[in-house]
Amino acid sequence: MLAEIITIGDELLIGQVVDTNSAFISKQLNKIGVSVYQITSIQDDKVHILQALGEAEQRADIIICTGGLGPTKDDITKKTIAEYFNDTLIRDSSVLKNIESIWKQHVRTELLQVNKDQALIPSKSKPLMNTLGTAPGMWLEKGEKTFISLPGVPYEMEALVCKQVIPKLKERYNCPYILHKTLIVYGLGESALAARIESWEDALPKHIKLAYLPNLGKMRLRLSTKGFDEAQLQLDVQGQIDKVIPLIKEEYAGLEDEDGSVEIVIAKHLTKRNRTLAIAESCTGGSVAERFTSNSGASTFFKGGVVTYSTQSKINVLKVSEADIASHSVVSAQVAEAMAINSKALFQSDYAVATTGNAGPTKGDSDAEVGTVYIAIATNAEVYSKEFNFGNSRLKVINKAVNKALEMLLKEIFKN
Amino acid sequence: MLAEIITIGDELLIGQVVDTNSAFISKQLNKIGVSVYQITSIQDDKVHILQALGEAEQRADIIICTGGLGPTKDDITKKTIAEYFNDTLIRDSSVLKNIESIWKQHVRTELLQVNKDQALIPSKSKPLMNTLGTAPGMWLEKGEKTFISLPGVPYEMEALVCKQVIPKLKERYNCPYILHKTLIVYGLGESALAARIESWEDALPKHIKLAYLPNLGKMRLRLSTKGFDEAQLQLDVQGQIDKVIPLIKEEYAGLEDEDGSVEIVIAKHLTKRNRTLAIAESCTGGSVAERFTSNSGASTFFKGGVVTYSTQSKINVLKVSEADIASHSVVSAQVAEAMAINSKALFQSDYAVATTGNAGPTKGDSDAEVGTVYIAIATNAEVYSKEFNFGNSRLKVINKAVNKALEMLLKEIFKN
Repeated sequence: MLAEIITIGDELLIGQVVDTNSAFISKQLNKIGVSVYQITSIQDDKVHILQALGEAEQRADIIICTGGLGPTKDDITKKTIAEYFNDTLIRDSSVLKNIESIWKQHVRTELLQVNKDQALIPSKSKPLMNTLGTAPGMWLEKGEKTFISLPGVPYEMEALVCKQVIPKLKERYNCPYILHKTLIVYGLGESALAARIESWEDALPKHIKLAYLPNLGKMRLRLSTKGFDEAQLQLDVQGQIDKVIPLIKEEYAGLEDEDGSVEIVIAKHLTKRNRTLAIAESCTGGSVAERFTSNSGASTFFKGGVVTYSTQSKINVLKVSEADIASHSVVSAQVAEAMAINSKALFQSDYAVATTGNAGPTKGDSDAEVGTVYIAIATNAEVYSKEFNFGNSRLKVINKAVNKALEMLLKEIFKN
Repeated sequence: MLAEIITIGDELLIGQVVDTNSAFISKQLNKIGVSVYQITSIQDDKVHILQALGEAEQRADIIICTGGLGPTKDDITKKTIAEYFNDTLIRDSSVLKNIESIWKQHVRTELLQVNKDQALIPSKSKPLMNTLGTAPGMWLEKGEKTFISLPGVPYEMEALVCKQVIPKLKERYNCPYILHKTLIVYGLGESALAARIESWEDALPKHIKLAYLPNLGKMRLRLSTKGFDEAQLQLDVQGQIDKVIPLIKEEYAGLEDEDGSVEIVIAKHLTKRNRTLAIAESCTGGSVAERFTSNSGASTFFKGGVVTYSTQSKINVLKVSEADIASHSVVSAQVAEAMAINSKALFQSDYAVATTGNAGPTKGDSDAEVGTVYIAIATNAEVYSKEFNFGNSRLKVINKAVNKALEMLLKEIFKN
């Protein structure tokens, strides 16, 4: 069972908006055994939309479009889909009712004709009711193939996919089970890892696919398979994981959560052990905290954090000693460790992680070379820190520092 | 001049990785007058790569591939490109030298044959030297068309695009000038905005395209044009902007920075006026701080922030009164305002913004309904707050709260 995703909107082609919709839809489709063959991003242009629909129909069973359903004149997806199906637009009374109800609840201004016209859908389509916005989703069938058109606003699209598209697809198709398991590996390059596990990789059964995903000091190793016998697939993949972990040796850092990543593994362990965390950030500027707080349940283990971006705030808020700063500079092991210890005390947590460094592009309050970062961990038993240099690209330095801070924290938590 | 981008990697099709490379490349191409016609994401599969290359060649002048250049067995882009060009791989001595030099500087383990083999490139290609990693970029010409293959690791790809691809493309092609200007509008829906500016929109000259970009309480209105007379295009677009601003009325919040967004506008104004900012976050968990600190120059105006995620930390760290919390709950105007005032004092800043709310999915330390958020602004003259309900999807609540906090801050700064 193959799907293709067509994301429509000029903003994608000029780089103004990153297409996050496709990844979300792909993940949901994968869970019900539908593989995505291709993702195509195209402009709000009739000829181009028609061409993309035609190509996708030849390759895939399920074609999902997002975007171009707004009330304004630049949005032409609906008209174009009607043309593709030799169809006309008719007013759907249930959609109109939904629009009127949303308007009543959330909007103070008058309901305009352009909004009412969002109730126009191709006569051959069934509406997918959008309770979060005025643009309805649409479901069209052509023989065994299904065409789905969804609004481009992420949270509206996400609700429609989870509540309507996925259940309907499961009903219509007999889908295989798709299984991905991802191992996290720290401190080992792609080729060094490949050398360690070469004999295992060569002996992998054909139905299990392997992928290496390197990113800023962290490697992910993904095993993927699909079929109709879920229990057997689980056994097969688990068997391979059990074989490969001893080969990776101590650089193996755990299994990635199905929908998540290393911060979710940390969150689970802290919650299970009833332990708490505080974060003190300088160069990472709130990014470490954000990685935890974007997931639900963070309040169970995350006590709080400080972003001490200025030297003065390190002294005033985190009580780092002025003498330490004067003799070692703000970018130093001493300051990182003091930030960790003092934030742990301030928030009364079991663990604290602290970052201080120079992300560039220019040197800040310290003489430290651009890219230099100290990361410290404080526990109930000890405090320690490590020095890194993450190069001279600002975002790369920040992201590598965040990944490294999470890695150090994960290793610390797994110690016990 | 048209380009197509082909991003290669199974991780994109299963939703494990969001494709941010395409947006980056598109933005850079746009700046030199190259429009991206289509972005296609495909699997690490020979037949699929060959097919995508063939289709892209028919439509575009410049074809840029990213991904699939690693040393491991799942990476087949290079072999497949050689096949597409009826070419063979040869060892490039300059690339091998670069690999050996990177290895010496950054890697402790032995240089393996698979790494040396990264110096194999199609004989018809010119290498694009990758100083940040071992996979070289490749440049191939076929008549007037150019094929470029780049590694998928974002920072390696970004450096190659900026330092090599863009200068070489400017040399090879006579490109038009592309101009985008984006207006930020707050507190007005898509259709209400369209109604206000309808007569202006209808009278827009054909060479200026208009797009509406709604996102979580914020609207962006983009004008785009291209041509060879840069000065004239600037005049044309500025003329239209001058006409439309009075029509949008007070909901107009400023022009978006060319490469950025509202936080960059705020950063510029604070820096220009020599004013500073502190941030106190509860439900937004570090995301407001992260929006500022991911841009360079943040240390000029951003003093620091606190993420007081637990009630106790609001009392201990931000000195919010226990009595206020007891009588009004942690999600209240009183607590938001106290957080703003006290963080402003703690970090000795001119402005402070504070958020407290319940992002869900379950109720936390407060009885407040899921989605309720209070945002407060403190200045040298006053403090005030507003109450919002941002619905019941966690990430939507967080992102809407971040956008709204930035909006309130922007309006406050523009007051004077």
